[in-house]
Amino acid sequence: MSTIEPQATLYHQLAETLAEAIHQGTFMPGSRLPAIRRCASSHQVSVNTVLTAYGILEDRGLIEARPQSGYYVRDTLPSLTRQAFQPTGVRSPSSEKLDLIDTVFAAQNHSEYTNISLACPQSGDFFPTAKISRIIASLMRREPDLIGRYALPPGSLRLRREIARRSMALGMSLSAEDVTLTHGCMEALQLGLRAVTRPGDCVGVETPTYFYLFPLLASLGLKVVEIPTDPQFGLSLDALELLLQEKRIQALIAMPNAQNPLGSSMTLEGKKRLARLVNHYQVPLLEDGLYSELQFCWPLTPAVKAFDEDGWVMYCTSFTKTVAPDFHLGWIAAGRFSQQLARLKAVSSLAESRLLSEALGHFLESGGYDHHLRSLRRRYAAQLEEARGIIARHFPQGTRATRPSGGFVFWVELPGNVDTLELFHRLLQEKICLTPGALYTLSERCNHALRLSCCYPFDERYTWALKRTGAVACEMSGIAAGM
Amino acid sequence: MSTIEPQATLYHQLAETLAEAIHQGTFMPGSRLPAIRRCASSHQVSVNTVLTAYGILEDRGLIEARPQSGYYVRDTLPSLTRQAFQPTGVRSPSSEKLDLIDTVFAAQNHSEYTNISLACPQSGDFFPTAKISRIIASLMRREPDLIGRYALPPGSLRLRREIARRSMALGMSLSAEDVTLTHGCMEALQLGLRAVTRPGDCVGVETPTYFYLFPLLASLGLKVVEIPTDPQFGLSLDALELLLQEKRIQALIAMPNAQNPLGSSMTLEGKKRLARLVNHYQVPLLEDGLYSELQFCWPLTPAVKAFDEDGWVMYCTSFTKTVAPDFHLGWIAAGRFSQQLARLKAVSSLAESRLLSEALGHFLESGGYDHHLRSLRRRYAAQLEEARGIIARHFPQGTRATRPSGGFVFWVELPGNVDTLELFHRLLQEKICLTPGALYTLSERCNHALRLSCCYPFDERYTWALKRTGAVACEMSGIAAGM
Repeated sequence: MSTIEPQATLYHQLAETLAEAIHQGTFMPGSRLPAIRRCASSHQVSVNTVLTAYGILEDRGLIEARPQSGYYVRDTLPSLTRQAFQPTGVRSPSSEKLDLIDTVFAAQNHSEYTNISLACPQSGDFFPTAKISRIIASLMRREPDLIGRYALPPGSLRLRREIARRSMALGMSLSAEDVTLTHGCMEALQLGLRAVTRPGDCVGVETPTYFYLFPLLASLGLKVVEIPTDPQFGLSLDALELLLQEKRIQALIAMPNAQNPLGSSMTLEGKKRLARLVNHYQVPLLEDGLYSELQFCWPLTPAVKAFDEDGWVMYCTSFTKTVAPDFHLGWIAAGRFSQQLARLKAVSSLAESRLLSEALGHFLESGGYDHHLRSLRRRYAAQLEEARGIIARHFPQGTRATRPSGGFVFWVELPGNVDTLELFHRLLQEKICLTPGALYTLSERCNHALRLSCCYPFDERYTWALKRTGAVACEMSGIAAGM
Repeated sequence: MSTIEPQATLYHQLAETLAEAIHQGTFMPGSRLPAIRRCASSHQVSVNTVLTAYGILEDRGLIEARPQSGYYVRDTLPSLTRQAFQPTGVRSPSSEKLDLIDTVFAAQNHSEYTNISLACPQSGDFFPTAKISRIIASLMRREPDLIGRYALPPGSLRLRREIARRSMALGMSLSAEDVTLTHGCMEALQLGLRAVTRPGDCVGVETPTYFYLFPLLASLGLKVVEIPTDPQFGLSLDALELLLQEKRIQALIAMPNAQNPLGSSMTLEGKKRLARLVNHYQVPLLEDGLYSELQFCWPLTPAVKAFDEDGWVMYCTSFTKTVAPDFHLGWIAAGRFSQQLARLKAVSSLAESRLLSEALGHFLESGGYDHHLRSLRRRYAAQLEEARGIIARHFPQGTRATRPSGGFVFWVELPGNVDTLELFHRLLQEKICLTPGALYTLSERCNHALRLSCCYPFDERYTWALKRTGAVACEMSGIAAGM
């Protein structure tokens, strides 16, 4: 198994080995881990190393210490497995669906609501805000004119160079000229779609998919075909190939790494095949790489764009989830559509702020980004495990969930015909805000599912909200909690 | 005549009175102004007041001191007057036109080129950058989390409230809820168009018009009808009414105040009629108010939106030309399309940075904006007069130019069949960048015109570039300079 980081210390290596053993069922839920001294001797490390490693697993919610007894594997959730279904026919989002998305999204803005579902980091202490503030202050001192100068396309060369340099970690080979800065990943997707589609065209999307795609597609007059997506391995390429053969889609949007909302990642072979397919059939792929740098493995698994021979893959992403949520700084490497994209950005919203782009460029240059990403990945991985632990104990028996390969969202399916839209409305009265599965598809397929997000601090309020969600789901289903 | 500012001092009042007399021809070019003492006694002010007023007019390039002789009115340019022509038929921008716009716009990015034409302020010392820097630094200190929080729609309430409050100065009555923040005026126009048109629709524009509208309209698959526009009073409403009666346009874009590139402003009656027309025919008007706050008169003349009974006017503008060019913070008040606009913004680029929006909101709250606008107006008015003075002396005899009512761009027409596209290419070799008239229309009507911009510091390099442009134009036309 690959480790969380390149120079992992001994106790991290040990923790990873044990975590893997737990996930693979070598240590079953409820079973006792080897005693400290035995583990130390069998792995030829010190007692302190074992204690620290066990501490890490405890923080992640994988194991628990029972007084006078030792360490035990906590109950884990059954994972979601493949569900076979065919691509849907061509659909357009209904106005009811769009209204629902609006309603749920707007609920996010109530500061007194506890959010357990949206992917909008709301805590500065996850991010290197102090360092970026210092960079901004220093920039304003050194270049007092900056604010008074008109920012023009193509925007900060420093930032685009850093983006190009860093893209190598995902197997891509880009130059600064290949990169167009955008106002977040949302604008990257919007411009990408406008570059390659016309109203009436049909776009393939994953099922379930990022729900905000539906109003975006609707706003552009685009129709949707939903493609089956495996909870672990992502997009069904067999289904996709059928659609491509029959020329049923004019573009495709997919998240091959750490998919939102499933957390799934395609295999290396799958990514290569996907790149071959879109190049062969000459159908543009908008690869949404938003969580690619938050994969839990190291080295990172590559982007599909890494295997893009003729430029049919348009890689879209943003620093919104990783460094500076406030800045909404994203980018697109649009392959054969690069020039078109740059033009479209210029006439759609001209350019991004140089103050913010340069600040981010300086931060990336400083080398602080990798260090920050490592701690962010560790934190999200731990919080995901902890959330899964709470669900295992507090949600109805038979609840299943995905085990994400990165990022901070995962997908939960409830037993007993619990309608998660009804669950949403009931919990909103208690000021708990979640996103029901119905948001993530135009079909009825996800009515018993919901997405959860671990981008919030795991404080008392958040864990209370999670447990309360489980309690209401138990009540609605008439099924007792898992423990 | 209205004065430049509400509490104008005595010498400003006197300067304005004299300037008006010069513009109306009471004092002809070349004639001598009253002697200092005579003027003081006839206006019942002190000698010092007269000296200061004459100094202001001298700074504006309206008069000049001749040693041992007194003050004389400088040569002024003949103004452009109405040219009668009919609306064009329906057109689409050709790819040659779009390439030309790209070429000219890209030339702007060469730091060694001297720009005399584009409306992109590149000098921080025109703007309150020190104060805004202090506000940003203070915000980051007080709210260290800010950068790490996800900015969500509808964005800073503080900024939207200030926008609503300030809109009263233009006769509008808005609340914070009516305002959608955008990424500059460009995104306001883009979203506005997407909200009310479909590909294939036809949009009415002024002639000449802001050239970047053409690639924007082309990117949205929209066609264009060009409407005659008076160099002094703006859009021809008779022509417009004909188009509306015949249902030949589905939307209209206009700049009723300080039009780009003419500098024209519609009369009060004209604005009222325009509002009545679009409401009667139910055709949305995108009112581009980019230079409305830079009108030279005080109180400001109102926006057309001020007379919008049923919400068919969508007011678009930005702080890019007035306070913080780098931030690209704009807004739209979309009337009956407000909700649609807010949705479209959210799915197109989500939200603007809270750090920047709050900083701007604090700056507006502080009251520093009005003071800053006054000095900016004075500066631009003076620079426009100075530029007109240089043109009068260095451009071919018979050159005519508009006299803008605000902003910092104006329109120049050359005599002798000088092709300004050729002029552009010749001057580019000398690293001088201008925008030929061909950019501003899809017709051949403006091939002998160009736009000039006074948003740059009037340093030696700028004035050299202006004079050099005149010299090359003289050479090309075979006509001697004006003086």
